Amino acid sequence: MKIFDEAALVSGIRNGNRRALARGITLVESTRAADMELAQRMLQQLMPHTGKSVRLGITGVPGVGKSTFIEALGLHVAAQQKRVAVLAVDPSSPYTGGSILGDKTRMTELSRLEEVFIRPSPTGGTLGGVSRKTRESILLCEAAGYDVVIVETVGVGQSEYEVASMVDFFLMLMLPNAGDSLQGIKRGIMELADLILVNKADAGFEARAEAAKREYSNALHLLRPKYPGYTTEVKLCSALHKNGVAEAWEHVQTYLARLGSDGHFIQNRNRQLIHWTRRLTEELLLARLWEHPDVKTGWDTETARIRSGETTPVLAGQTLIETFRKSYSA
Amino acid sequence: MKIFDEAALVSGIRNGNRRALARGITLVESTRAADMELAQRMLQQLMPHTGKSVRLGITGVPGVGKSTFIEALGLHVAAQQKRVAVLAVDPSSPYTGGSILGDKTRMTELSRLEEVFIRPSPTGGTLGGVSRKTRESILLCEAAGYDVVIVETVGVGQSEYEVASMVDFFLMLMLPNAGDSLQGIKRGIMELADLILVNKADAGFEARAEAAKREYSNALHLLRPKYPGYTTEVKLCSALHKNGVAEAWEHVQTYLARLGSDGHFIQNRNRQLIHWTRRLTEELLLARLWEHPDVKTGWDTETARIRSGETTPVLAGQTLIETFRKSYSA
Repeated sequence: MKIFDEAALVSGIRNGNRRALARGITLVESTRAADMELAQRMLQQLMPHTGKSVRLGITGVPGVGKSTFIEALGLHVAAQQKRVAVLAVDPSSPYTGGSILGDKTRMTELSRLEEVFIRPSPTGGTLGGVSRKTRESILLCEAAGYDVVIVETVGVGQSEYEVASMVDFFLMLMLPNAGDSLQGIKRGIMELADLILVNKADAGFEARAEAAKREYSNALHLLRPKYPGYTTEVKLCSALHKNGVAEAWEHVQTYLARLGSDGHFIQNRNRQLIHWTRRLTEELLLARLWEHPDVKTGWDTETARIRSGETTPVLAGQTLIETFRKSYSA
Repeated sequence: MKIFDEAALVSGIRNGNRRALARGITLVESTRAADMELAQRMLQQLMPHTGKSVRLGITGVPGVGKSTFIEALGLHVAAQQKRVAVLAVDPSSPYTGGSILGDKTRMTELSRLEEVFIRPSPTGGTLGGVSRKTRESILLCEAAGYDVVIVETVGVGQSEYEVASMVDFFLMLMLPNAGDSLQGIKRGIMELADLILVNKADAGFEARAEAAKREYSNALHLLRPKYPGYTTEVKLCSALHKNGVAEAWEHVQTYLARLGSDGHFIQNRNRQLIHWTRRLTEELLLARLWEHPDVKTGWDTETARIRSGETTPVLAGQTLIETFRKSYSA
């Protein structure tokens, strides 16, 4: 049974059909070797039509108001006749079945718009695999004509680095309570930010928000700038009341124009392509390894021998790649 | 110049020499193919002497008091004539140069003991690579005679799953402020816990700590138990005042005895060995890929062609693994 018709899929995505796009992303997320090959053929055909969106990464701890902010920003951008896609990278979802965009209902207004595409986090695989899939999903959204692709992530760890390595602009949302030890870990991640937005600067919380803004600004001065001569700004916003959202978008555009004119934009894009190539090559090879019939048989034998104490993981690993070496070229 | 003398290294580790152990771990952390091979030979020789420690994972958000708790627990365990090793897995350190155990001085009393070994997080590589190295570092500590190996991690993401997949007992430290939205993400991770300890249950905070304990207990009842018939307990402690630390250690031992008698302990250990085998096989193969002279040459050619727009990452990846296939068996 043929689930994916290659030509129909490619033309559907090119025509901006949301169902085709969703199917394309499902294909990209598959770990079956046959699906991966089809996905790569599809990507290869779509590549000439990619690269034209603004790729925007957004991070922040749970509770900072990411959904509310993305909804407000998405509505603002959509009102300017631009098509918006939202993708999620959730480091905990590979195991628990997703959380950040698990229910689209969190962005009720935005998800109702015809010109908006929202996709929850891919499930399954390592963070590296998830981020490779997200990178390819960005390309599919671009081929489908989306003008702004927002990649949402959460956490205090590696997923921020992954997302920062696939976007043009990395926006960090912060709570208006600087000095909180829970945000201490964010220092390394602050170096990735192109803009810090102190959210929940609502009426009555102005003083706290201003204090937080000062504290983040001071902290940023101690870090190395993201690009020589650049300063990461700290701004206030209230996503709930839609204050500061238009200004933030304005800032993104001005900043990207500057990156474009001094060459950083294209340098970033090229570096990201090279990074993706490395990941992709590794995933292609590992798929070949684990789908090889001799390696499958060898895996069963070796793991049984590990359980019975006849071999060790080290020897088993060597045996398996030797099996692969012998039969791979045959 | 020979930096690592294999036989001296193996016997040094077996004799419990801390410098040899530190060198062995450095070797395990190396990503050079030659070092990796030496590391695997070393591990192979040490494997018969591994497996006898209690492997204890400890997690919690920044500010929860992990260092203080590990110091208190380490001192308590060391006072019972047991040797303690502390390893760190820090998802942010591959890029920023380490944070959780970056300065050993945070555990001043513990680090002064002769029978205690403290090792900061490995730097470099993906989280998968870091966790493979940590797994092997546990084995080296065991071969060096450590009775308790504590693996510390931090964050709200994938590193908890990685650490949970390499230890016998996973302990989660929590702050005495349940309901905090910042801890919302912990639900998926709570399913990994064998014990939840509400830390900072200090004088004056008893009511808050008790309320938190109730809330966590209620939440746990909604989750599936880690093992059929088991309940993850929630206990209070004050690491700062060394209250509840001895009781927590007592609980760990009773719990592990139960896991041992009903077969879960050995099942976990076997599953973890198999998981490690998979990772190790992949790393060995990828090291062969990237160190292959033809692939190195091909990489330079292909990335130049990507920059000039002559090829795409997809085609480049396929070309590279084809290059590898042709020359790998030669």
